[in-house]
Amino acid sequence: MSRRPLFERVAVIGCGLIGGSFALACREQNLVGRIVAAARTKETLALARELGVADETTRDVQQAVSGADLVYLAAPVQATISILQTIGSRLEKGALVTDAGSTKAEICAAAEQAIPGTAEFVGGHPMAGGETSGIRAARPDLFRGAPYFLTTPEGSLSAAVQRFYDLLEHLEVCVCVVTPEEHDRLVSLASHLPHLAAAALMNVVISVDGAEGQVLGSAGRGLRDTTRIAAGSPEMWRDICRTNKQNISDALAAYIETLSFLREDLDAGRWDELYDALRRAAEARRRLDELPGSQTE
Amino acid sequence: MSRRPLFERVAVIGCGLIGGSFALACREQNLVGRIVAAARTKETLALARELGVADETTRDVQQAVSGADLVYLAAPVQATISILQTIGSRLEKGALVTDAGSTKAEICAAAEQAIPGTAEFVGGHPMAGGETSGIRAARPDLFRGAPYFLTTPEGSLSAAVQRFYDLLEHLEVCVCVVTPEEHDRLVSLASHLPHLAAAALMNVVISVDGAEGQVLGSAGRGLRDTTRIAAGSPEMWRDICRTNKQNISDALAAYIETLSFLREDLDAGRWDELYDALRRAAEARRRLDELPGSQTE
Repeated sequence: MSRRPLFERVAVIGCGLIGGSFALACREQNLVGRIVAAARTKETLALARELGVADETTRDVQQAVSGADLVYLAAPVQATISILQTIGSRLEKGALVTDAGSTKAEICAAAEQAIPGTAEFVGGHPMAGGETSGIRAARPDLFRGAPYFLTTPEGSLSAAVQRFYDLLEHLEVCVCVVTPEEHDRLVSLASHLPHLAAAALMNVVISVDGAEGQVLGSAGRGLRDTTRIAAGSPEMWRDICRTNKQNISDALAAYIETLSFLREDLDAGRWDELYDALRRAAEARRRLDELPGSQTE
Repeated sequence: MSRRPLFERVAVIGCGLIGGSFALACREQNLVGRIVAAARTKETLALARELGVADETTRDVQQAVSGADLVYLAAPVQATISILQTIGSRLEKGALVTDAGSTKAEICAAAEQAIPGTAEFVGGHPMAGGETSGIRAARPDLFRGAPYFLTTPEGSLSAAVQRFYDLLEHLEVCVCVVTPEEHDRLVSLASHLPHLAAAALMNVVISVDGAEGQVLGSAGRGLRDTTRIAAGSPEMWRDICRTNKQNISDALAAYIETLSFLREDLDAGRWDELYDALRRAAEARRRLDELPGSQTE
């Protein structure tokens, strides 16, 4: 397919699952001109070339962003903030900087400080990835069908942001424009609470399990599905907790309360109430299967 | 493949996902002679014949068990107990009765009362199924690779139970022989707690979500995986809670405590402790992926 690229030169900073998948998707659809990838290790950069993720690679972030009209930061939250603080002076006039960090308020505040008025920033967050990581797991359809948040302080989109929005639509994601604060509240429930719920479930199982691991050995699909995301990077999730602390604390409090009510109904033998709670959950879960994105695996 | 069947005439009582899958698996491997299936509705029985689940069908449970040397009860827990109380006088001399109920202590106690000394009972529980149900979802490989509990009061297996054990090994399940009480404790953690954790997660999400369902709409694979089993039958899960009340209450208490500790670390900004909890969970979850059964979907 031949089309005029939406961006001429894209710098992808961080070549893991997300950065690699974004680059592969853009390339597959000819949405961008050249892609230059930056990463910390030579091994990752060699893989980036081998897997066709980038035309050029460098370990020098400042060099990567020079000349780019789109800078895509695909790093954990703390690293994203650090990178933002170093690239300001090297950005082209009119360049758009975006990121893929899991929390947005702190990143957007850092960008506000660090990005000069001649360039522009829009926060981004693809709801894709899960427990896998690394460039080897990258694939061009990773984002397809998944929600993709764009965060802007106001509601309106500038021309450059609109162009990035158009690019995302080509990737067949479900773009959702919200403020950074609203994003962080939504994902504390849709993503961060599920992660901590899964991690706590694993920790309960291993704390009561004997040396033979009989509970783990008894796991059917229920425990496996419920805890799958708990395998994710603890560094990344600590970063997420640190930068979305209050929302996650509120979500945990609501979850603990809901579980305590369930346990009270159980202890008191209030089977109708328990049934009703299980029925509401089952109905909501079936609704979730009817929403876009349910086919993404 | 030609082999002498391990059981001549099998009565499958209850033709849903589990009963149907058991029958299909036995048939595919020629492990049994004739299969007679009993269910409550004509529609299910018509499907049972259409899908090749049974040679004969009947709505009369007593008729089904007559002449059977293996009786396989595949009904929810309360229904299993009711059926046990009605079939005693119709069982053949030497018949083996087993079940597939999700909890075992109450079922085994009911069987102790109801099954005459001329026949025999062994509790059973395949850790398969999840959120799907009904005979249309039945498939011959449903149990493959999954744990399958057999519960006996003592450790030793009689000749008839050993024959059923051999049958299960042909189905390539991971047979695990425990007492009914030990079973109920293990599954309260490996299956029942994950279900309630998933249901509570859905209920938190819908209780805070606006009419537009923005949190549900933001769901990535994390929330979807974590809550998948919550779509399961509320009737079945109420039965499970009722018949495994104390173990589930204990498991919920441990889970609530673990979540509260996580929240305290978060609120206090104890990032090293939080990291450590997330790391232990991630390591345990990766171990789970290396155990048998992790490929079953």
